[in-house]
Amino acid sequence: MDGRNIIGIRKSGIPTKVINVFSPSLQRILDGSFNIASDEELEEAMQIATSAFETYKNVSGSKRAEFLNAIADEILALDDVLVNRAMQESGLPEGRIKGERGRTVNQLRMFAKVAEEGSWVEASIDQAIPDRQPFPKADIRKMLRPLGPVVVFTASNFPLAFSTAGGDTASALAAGCPVIVKAHESHLGTNTHVAMAIQRAAEKTGMPDGVFSSLNGKGIELGQKLVMHPAVKAIAFTGSLKGGKAIYDASAKRKEPIPVFAEMGSINPVLLLDQALQNNGANIANQYAGSVTQGVGQFCTNPGLLVGKSGAAMDVFVSELGKAIEGKKPEVMLNEGICKNFEKNKNHHLAQEGVNLVGESETTAAGFQGRPSVATVSGADFIKNKDLKEEVFGPFSLVVQCADDAEMQAVVESFDGQLTGTVMGENEEIIANRKIIETLQSKVGRIIFNGVPTGVEVCHSMHHGGPYPATTDSRFTSVGTDAIKRFGRPVAFQSYLQELLPEELRDGNPAGIWRKMDGEFGKL
Amino acid sequence: MDGRNIIGIRKSGIPTKVINVFSPSLQRILDGSFNIASDEELEEAMQIATSAFETYKNVSGSKRAEFLNAIADEILALDDVLVNRAMQESGLPEGRIKGERGRTVNQLRMFAKVAEEGSWVEASIDQAIPDRQPFPKADIRKMLRPLGPVVVFTASNFPLAFSTAGGDTASALAAGCPVIVKAHESHLGTNTHVAMAIQRAAEKTGMPDGVFSSLNGKGIELGQKLVMHPAVKAIAFTGSLKGGKAIYDASAKRKEPIPVFAEMGSINPVLLLDQALQNNGANIANQYAGSVTQGVGQFCTNPGLLVGKSGAAMDVFVSELGKAIEGKKPEVMLNEGICKNFEKNKNHHLAQEGVNLVGESETTAAGFQGRPSVATVSGADFIKNKDLKEEVFGPFSLVVQCADDAEMQAVVESFDGQLTGTVMGENEEIIANRKIIETLQSKVGRIIFNGVPTGVEVCHSMHHGGPYPATTDSRFTSVGTDAIKRFGRPVAFQSYLQELLPEELRDGNPAGIWRKMDGEFGKL
Repeated sequence: MDGRNIIGIRKSGIPTKVINVFSPSLQRILDGSFNIASDEELEEAMQIATSAFETYKNVSGSKRAEFLNAIADEILALDDVLVNRAMQESGLPEGRIKGERGRTVNQLRMFAKVAEEGSWVEASIDQAIPDRQPFPKADIRKMLRPLGPVVVFTASNFPLAFSTAGGDTASALAAGCPVIVKAHESHLGTNTHVAMAIQRAAEKTGMPDGVFSSLNGKGIELGQKLVMHPAVKAIAFTGSLKGGKAIYDASAKRKEPIPVFAEMGSINPVLLLDQALQNNGANIANQYAGSVTQGVGQFCTNPGLLVGKSGAAMDVFVSELGKAIEGKKPEVMLNEGICKNFEKNKNHHLAQEGVNLVGESETTAAGFQGRPSVATVSGADFIKNKDLKEEVFGPFSLVVQCADDAEMQAVVESFDGQLTGTVMGENEEIIANRKIIETLQSKVGRIIFNGVPTGVEVCHSMHHGGPYPATTDSRFTSVGTDAIKRFGRPVAFQSYLQELLPEELRDGNPAGIWRKMDGEFGKL
Repeated sequence: MDGRNIIGIRKSGIPTKVINVFSPSLQRILDGSFNIASDEELEEAMQIATSAFETYKNVSGSKRAEFLNAIADEILALDDVLVNRAMQESGLPEGRIKGERGRTVNQLRMFAKVAEEGSWVEASIDQAIPDRQPFPKADIRKMLRPLGPVVVFTASNFPLAFSTAGGDTASALAAGCPVIVKAHESHLGTNTHVAMAIQRAAEKTGMPDGVFSSLNGKGIELGQKLVMHPAVKAIAFTGSLKGGKAIYDASAKRKEPIPVFAEMGSINPVLLLDQALQNNGANIANQYAGSVTQGVGQFCTNPGLLVGKSGAAMDVFVSELGKAIEGKKPEVMLNEGICKNFEKNKNHHLAQEGVNLVGESETTAAGFQGRPSVATVSGADFIKNKDLKEEVFGPFSLVVQCADDAEMQAVVESFDGQLTGTVMGENEEIIANRKIIETLQSKVGRIIFNGVPTGVEVCHSMHHGGPYPATTDSRFTSVGTDAIKRFGRPVAFQSYLQELLPEELRDGNPAGIWRKMDGEFGKL
């Protein structure tokens, strides 16, 4: 296991400053010593990223697509070497890691298509009107151009799909931005395998040196330095509210403000409407026991709050949910810190006034396992307690039992911004509950009817984002094709020479993309 | 002159706390005492904006269009009352104020069309694939929804087009966001006339109380309170770097981060290529003497820096430019502060090492007039002097004379972010100078060939923005149809009921808008 930093085409590391990875499932230190990046290495990565940008921003969409597809091929070629290391480092089972690898590869190929097709640049042309009165109108054309080097903070909970070659890296590279990855301490080996795959793909497809680097660090030191570096033009982060807000706050002190796309915590509230509970309570209980414990509750869309009205149907639901949770087995969490925080935060919730444990896995947890549990609280107690609105990252959910419609409305009004909100209901009652649903919609990035929030489809219409504190920028998504839009800024070209215009803006539309001509869409 | 604050449908003011306006052209205090908004009035404006948003966000695009068109009608109906007051308060001549009124009205009608047409919401639909393996694909649809109440800081240099009913207000209202205007101290009367026009238009078209308010303040106190208010969801500002950065920094301390769209200073560099100087130097000198002094140099796109290579052609150019500037008359600037700062900053520039005054209006300045002048400096002196890269707001421009191509390239590389960059050149030399032009392009929001940067066309393809410090968010424009995009965030609707979907996302496209269906554009 080569634990050196990846700095463009070379590897670098000072042997005396190393860290290791502890496997949560094997409960031992894994092979491989990972070199902590020095200030000089950080500086070098930034300098070559800056000079790579000068070339890479003008590399064609189809060449960028080749690069992204080559990364996907190199990742698949790693085969069991990658799968086994990711399993050991994350504690996640083989099926999940292989599924995540599939998602990662699909995302890379999807952004390859987006880059190759080319319409993402939002090209627009206003034709000249030389004889307009009182002033002539000039020829003006605009399109998105890449921002510059992007720092990607990798996520612990998706060691592949939201990490080294995950959606952030894939969309930034597709947009024409070099990427500097801050490796996650929990999966440094997985990161190294994937970073080397990217390094090989860059070499094979002739990308400029510095289009990709990956640096190892311990604690927040490297991350802070990356955020403050003047060469960085955007930051992408997936993780905790604490981590994301620290990056946002540090970034706000930069001389030059830059976009910070931090996707952070969320409790993903679910509204359980009356008829749905009455007609279908047991099924919903089982469906949600699955969603709450999926991936040991370590999804950012994990449903941490189930809200409905008290009564006989609610009692049955809670009882069924409790039973279903009792049957779930504790599973290994991502690392020691996450496991300890889960226990601490869950116990803090359970110690709050009016909170009652109503179901817990019958099996006790060992090692870094998280033990699934659910609890109840009244609407009144929930509303007045700020702590209960905070995420418990792991297999835990709180059922809020409201006295009446007004209290349920007040519960929803008390929510902070969320990645998702869900409504479980029969069609007629959904229509009758238009008001509370609209309130929920105003708090979330995605609203779901009769489903579970876990499972984020990678597609054109996905929005994985939401008002603060779900993210630091509700206007952009980190999943789906539009994630590429985070990394471009418009540039207008006035009275420009055809020869110097980017292909996307030339007469006759040689790129064959969708664009606007005097405000009208078309392949014009 | 009613100087009270406009708070939704009512007027409010404590008679003891008032400010007045001093006319820069008449050199006297104008009639009208303007009530400074109290904390209670600020709070009331915010509360009604928040409750208005609940209604206004669902008001149809065509109703919003009626509102915007009614504002335009009400502004035109003010006729000479508005024109005269704006002239008195700004010192700008009648032709300019009438032209600006036309621009303001056109912008309102343009955003009315954008709201009515409706495609700006970027609707996208991914159809369900219930039998997809291994998991079914859900129906997912997304579109932009309005952010919430927007605070607009009005600009001194465009008392109509970038002020009370200017592009920021028009685009925010078109997007479905209530607006709270911070009136500019220099044109409180113009602001009151326009704010009351908006108030009347809101009443006539049945808009909710609180969709628009306008508050008067003195100094930075009211502005700071507006920025920090939790009900505010976005801020738009046009003005100085100092003012914009203060707003950005204050906003960064908010509990909930919000977008800050500050359009700030710029020196708008112009590259003068050799052949153009040789073949056309005298004409360019006259063209730029006009651009530098247009509107007393008080445009954010004013060309403050002209860069070329030393030599005989440059000497002729400088001599012609100096002569042309000598023939320009001093004119009244917007207010005392701007006039004093112009003198101070110009003299600071002139006092720098190697800077030589080469042309100055033959007429001395009186009152708040700004006296046009131009100076020269060598490329070497420019590069090493940070102060010379700062904007002198007013009729002043600095000609940078470079020793050779390499020095000229280094000059361009030393630029901060800019709203615009311009290249004056013959076609062949433009192509030969591809590298320096690309460096310039990387620093600007709009790049112009053989024109002047002053004159910002209001159209689909305009980008009025640019990398920091030109703006705090290079990804958005404050001029042109896309300015509306600043005020929306995507929301995804998964497995939603048709009855509850916004019209823009319903089956059969009843809104008749452009949208994406499984990634393909069309009126589908």
